[in-house]
Amino acid sequence: MEKRELLYTGKAKSVYTTDNPDYLVLVFRDDTSAFDGKKVEQLARKGRVNNTFNAFIMDKLSTAGIETHFERLITPNEVLVKKLTMIPVECVVRNYAAGSLCRRLGVTEGLELSPPTFELFLKNDALGDPMINESHAVSFGWATEAQLSRMKELSFQVNEVLKALFADGNMLLVDFKLEFGLFHDRIILGDEFSPDGCRLWDKETRKKLDKDRFRQGLGDVVEAYEEVGQRLGIQF
Amino acid sequence: MEKRELLYTGKAKSVYTTDNPDYLVLVFRDDTSAFDGKKVEQLARKGRVNNTFNAFIMDKLSTAGIETHFERLITPNEVLVKKLTMIPVECVVRNYAAGSLCRRLGVTEGLELSPPTFELFLKNDALGDPMINESHAVSFGWATEAQLSRMKELSFQVNEVLKALFADGNMLLVDFKLEFGLFHDRIILGDEFSPDGCRLWDKETRKKLDKDRFRQGLGDVVEAYEEVGQRLGIQF
Ligand SMILES: Nc1ncnc2c1ncn2[C@@H]1O[C@H](COP(=O)(O)OP(=O)(O)O)[C@@H](O)[C@H]1O
Ligand SMILES: Nc1ncnc2c1ncn2[C@@H]1O[C@H](COP(=O)(O)OP(=O)(O)O)[C@@H](O)[C@H]1O
Ligand SMILES: [Mg+2]
Ligand SMILES: [Mg+2]
Repeated sequence: MEKRELLYTGKAKSVYTTDNPDYLVLVFRDDTSAFDGKKVEQLARKGRVNNTFNAFIMDKLSTAGIETHFERLITPNEVLVKKLTMIPVECVVRNYAAGSLCRRLGVTEGLELSPPTFELFLKNDALGDPMINESHAVSFGWATEAQLSRMKELSFQVNEVLKALFADGNMLLVDFKLEFGLFHDRIILGDEFSPDGCRLWDKETRKKLDKDRFRQGLGDVVEAYEEVGQRLGIQF
Repeated sequence: MEKRELLYTGKAKSVYTTDNPDYLVLVFRDDTSAFDGKKVEQLARKGRVNNTFNAFIMDKLSTAGIETHFERLITPNEVLVKKLTMIPVECVVRNYAAGSLCRRLGVTEGLELSPPTFELFLKNDALGDPMINESHAVSFGWATEAQLSRMKELSFQVNEVLKALFADGNMLLVDFKLEFGLFHDRIILGDEFSPDGCRLWDKETRKKLDKDRFRQGLGDVVEAYEEVGQRLGIQF
């Protein structure tokens, strides 16, 4: 597959067309952003760490029967994926309270959520990725009821698979964000799963091993991502 | 029924026990508040206008088969209601975009929403009544799935009844907020329906006839509420 034109430059990845209209190449850059793009830095190795990490996770999900856009790694920074028509709604599953949930609902970080919560956010940096609900998505045409219920079902399936995976590495999967898209009318998991878009804590010390290290200026960001990878047996 | 002790003083109403543990007296005061209680004023006649208005609406809903807490008017400011165990979640139905929806989603006031949207807000002034979703309500124990789905169903039924009622008075029912509670395990409509908790526009001129007059300092607040009442044939 041949990489052709740059289609879109996101905050962390660049998207290229290929010679096959059904496939894209995603290039993972070292750019790291937070607060809807208001804080941006380059972190050495982050692009390839996340690309490798994501490939490992997508493979685990696929083995568990969850269809993803992942096709194959091309280079340490590049991955071949199915071209999806992205649904502009992010799905968030939370097993423990953290981040915006704590601010919005006045609850303490680390509170266990039982059952886990499921939230939708509109993917729109200019509006600060506002929380929405299913009726907004339907009324504004962002997704249908059927698509939303499939996205929710898949999100909870991902949670079951990955909670167990990270538990084996002595980590808590606190929360995570997924993006889905349509591939020939099927809802498929797209984008990436990496410590950029989830929260992972050491099970005993609750040390943060995810992008909160960047948001909160705790340092050793990529080092923490690498530690997560090592605990899962990933070779970077 | 005899009014006994003051149980709770809300932002607009005071709640009294009666000699029957199944009933309460609500006293509608002239206090008018907005922005989670940050703007407060006394508006002459507002208490009895809203009490009379609410009695009229609750009667219409009850005639349409929707069970409410309303029993009977006692005085111009006082109403006898069933004592409910309130569910701390407000239900909002929107037929047109206005208020916080416009701010959150960047849409223009007056945009027709099709289908109407349904939102949940946590009733908590200290947190600014944050928007929540069903999974928050369930995980934090504010309401069960079954209660939420009943509240949603009843909210849309109220919308159908009242859209038609206000249309007959040449008004658009833009949006409204409902509060439900449990009466011996049944979900029943509680609190009030008045221009304090909904948006009503003149159908042709889109003149605001609701609490936005107060929020936006447009003046003639109670006069507008009275105009709404007159258009519906209410005698104040
Ligand atoms: N398989 C795919 N097909 C099409 N677009 C995708 C696919 N996977 C991810 N994307 C989109 O590509 C972009 C990835 O780059 P990213 O840097 O994460 O962007 P953003 O700043 O918009 O989040 C995102 O907009 C994402 O929705
Ligand atoms: N039937 C009822 N039984 C018990 N409580 C009720 C009933 N109807 C309304 N309430 C509660 O009484 C209070 C009414 O006063 P209000 O001034 O609106 O208070 P608030 O400032 O809390 O909104 C609200 O907290 C409302 O939830
Ligand atoms: Mg992204
Ligand atoms: Mg109230």
